[in-house]
Amino acid sequence: MFATRDSVEQVEEGDELAPKFDANGLIPVVTTDISSGELLMMGYMNQDAFSKTVETGEAHYWSRSRACLWHKGATSGLIQKVMEMRIDDDQDTVWLRVEVNGGASCHVGYRSCFYRSIPLGKVQPGETVKLHYHESEKVFDPQEIYGDAPNPTKL
Amino acid sequence: MFATRDSVEQVEEGDELAPKFDANGLIPVVTTDISSGELLMMGYMNQDAFSKTVETGEAHYWSRSRACLWHKGATSGLIQKVMEMRIDDDQDTVWLRVEVNGGASCHVGYRSCFYRSIPLGKVQPGETVKLHYHESEKVFDPQEIYGDAPNPTKL
Repeated sequence: MFATRDSVEQVEEGDELAPKFDANGLIPVVTTDISSGELLMMGYMNQDAFSKTVETGEAHYWSRSRACLWHKGATSGLIQKVMEMRIDDDQDTVWLRVEVNGGASCHVGYRSCFYRSIPLGKVQPGETVKLHYHESEKVFDPQEIYGDAPNPTKL
Repeated sequence: MFATRDSVEQVEEGDELAPKFDANGLIPVVTTDISSGELLMMGYMNQDAFSKTVETGEAHYWSRSRACLWHKGATSGLIQKVMEMRIDDDQDTVWLRVEVNGGASCHVGYRSCFYRSIPLGKVQPGETVKLHYHESEKVFDPQEIYGDAPNPTKL
């Protein structure tokens, strides 16, 4: 389903889908909630995940931590239904606008992965920035859903 | 201003800013319009760009195509004022919610870099997907703004 990338004009101003996968065969994917506009997560697709998303209308990613195709929600039930799938000017980034069964997208249990903010213009030299919380309650208990599965967060 | 990454609990559930920069020293950044919620662009920051954004409240990125610190809008005048800066669960992705002077963020001249969508569930085997346009008019003429500067799109 992908065209070859022949010219800048074709890629930027044409109507052919010609995505650029990086040296690892991946393209970054930004996923927002179609109702709230909130950023839910950022992930990656390989060619297979990209094709499956286009064919099924459900978000598929490449899991870098587990090194496998990842049908989001297959374990937790929190499937992402893709309402709109966009691609950027140079076709090296994908934007998914999704509806989520159950309303949570973050493995820690929050609605969005982005539950903390960084205060701006207030840091003193040599001081570590303190984050501010935007979600006070988890939507689900990760222990109940994932049990003993390894945590994807890497230090 | 960055703490060291000592434990998964600290990174996921703590209040210390401890971002993870990848093997190239970069962290991906998702930038949305604070009014419309629209995805404007996806870019990268190194430690310097991250610090300058926190200190000034204006979006700074690392330009991978030009290999330099990039104060967004320094050439075009389309500065991104950061209204909120968030970080995700494992602190390896940044979300900027911005206000843009002039209303455009894309070097092709459109409001958003994501002016085309991919139709879902309609592709025939062996057929190239045809993109659908969501913005019909450019906000500015890139030739007037950037002149002969090299196009950042790489094939």
